Amino acid sequence: MRALIVSADHFEDTELLYPYYRLQEEGMQVDVASIARGRIVGKHGYEVVADIALRDVDPEAYGLLILPGGKAPSKLRREAAAIAIAQAFVRAGKPVAAICHGPQILITAGVMAGRRATCSPSVAEELQQAAAEYEDSEVVVDGALVTSRRPADLPAFMRETLRLLKPSR
Amino acid sequence: MRALIVSADHFEDTELLYPYYRLQEEGMQVDVASIARGRIVGKHGYEVVADIALRDVDPEAYGLLILPGGKAPSKLRREAAAIAIAQAFVRAGKPVAAICHGPQILITAGVMAGRRATCSPSVAEELQQAAAEYEDSEVVVDGALVTSRRPADLPAFMRETLRLLKPSR
Repeated sequence: MRALIVSADHFEDTELLYPYYRLQEEGMQVDVASIARGRIVGKHGYEVVADIALRDVDPEAYGLLILPGGKAPSKLRREAAAIAIAQAFVRAGKPVAAICHGPQILITAGVMAGRRATCSPSVAEELQQAAAEYEDSEVVVDGALVTSRRPADLPAFMRETLRLLKPSR
Repeated sequence: MRALIVSADHFEDTELLYPYYRLQEEGMQVDVASIARGRIVGKHGYEVVADIALRDVDPEAYGLLILPGGKAPSKLRREAAAIAIAQAFVRAGKPVAAICHGPQILITAGVMAGRRATCSPSVAEELQQAAAEYEDSEVVVDGALVTSRRPADLPAFMRETLRLLKPSR
């Protein structure tokens, strides 16, 4: 199974790198998509190479979407191709795992109404305004949607994300 | 099972944080030990709280030792308590996983002679001088000793470390 991480400059480094390495540990191919192909740089200076531009992503080629946090999501939510990718995953019922500011992309994609979810405390208000049911928990699983709040939640975030994939692996 | 991470300021952030979160994901309690209790700061600015001072560590309380890289090991190898911890784990045949510059601590501990291992390329020469059999591979497993070269090796590093623990979990 292939997994897709959608991010951009100023990503929260561990929120991208932990899932990136973790999914590789499971033997998955993990592609990183960004506004353009090439190097993106995290808030803490880690560099990751984006394998593919958002506009070239075929969501059908992937079985899992990861949306890390940091300042990247506030930029990505203004990218039509990022929004279209998120909508395609949700529409297809495929697993989507978003952490910290990552759910901002899902809010703009208009897919959060009636969903139970968590996020960075600073995003909680707009999540509620999007008619989602906000919970202050380390991880919230609602169907194929997994959300967490911050880097310290990464163990629970990936445990539940991988549990969701287990039946299909 | 409890795991112990031994590190100090200027640790390579992902080489500490990936194992730290990964072992928590497996449900383990993970303690961080450093020269003194309290905050240590990585090369990329991540802060981790050291739960215990090296001199207060009882190696018998732990089933796994993780030695991350960065500039921390060059400082830790001058700490008698860090060396004693490494020696106690090797003597007891317990799993020790060291990455990048982490094996420097094992070299000073005098436990590398005749062992197959890898490390950061910049440590390879002194590893060979310590009579170890150096291999340029993403991960080398020799008995209960797991070694890797760099952050990009973390998926293989933790896959093999956890495989080693499986029988006892």
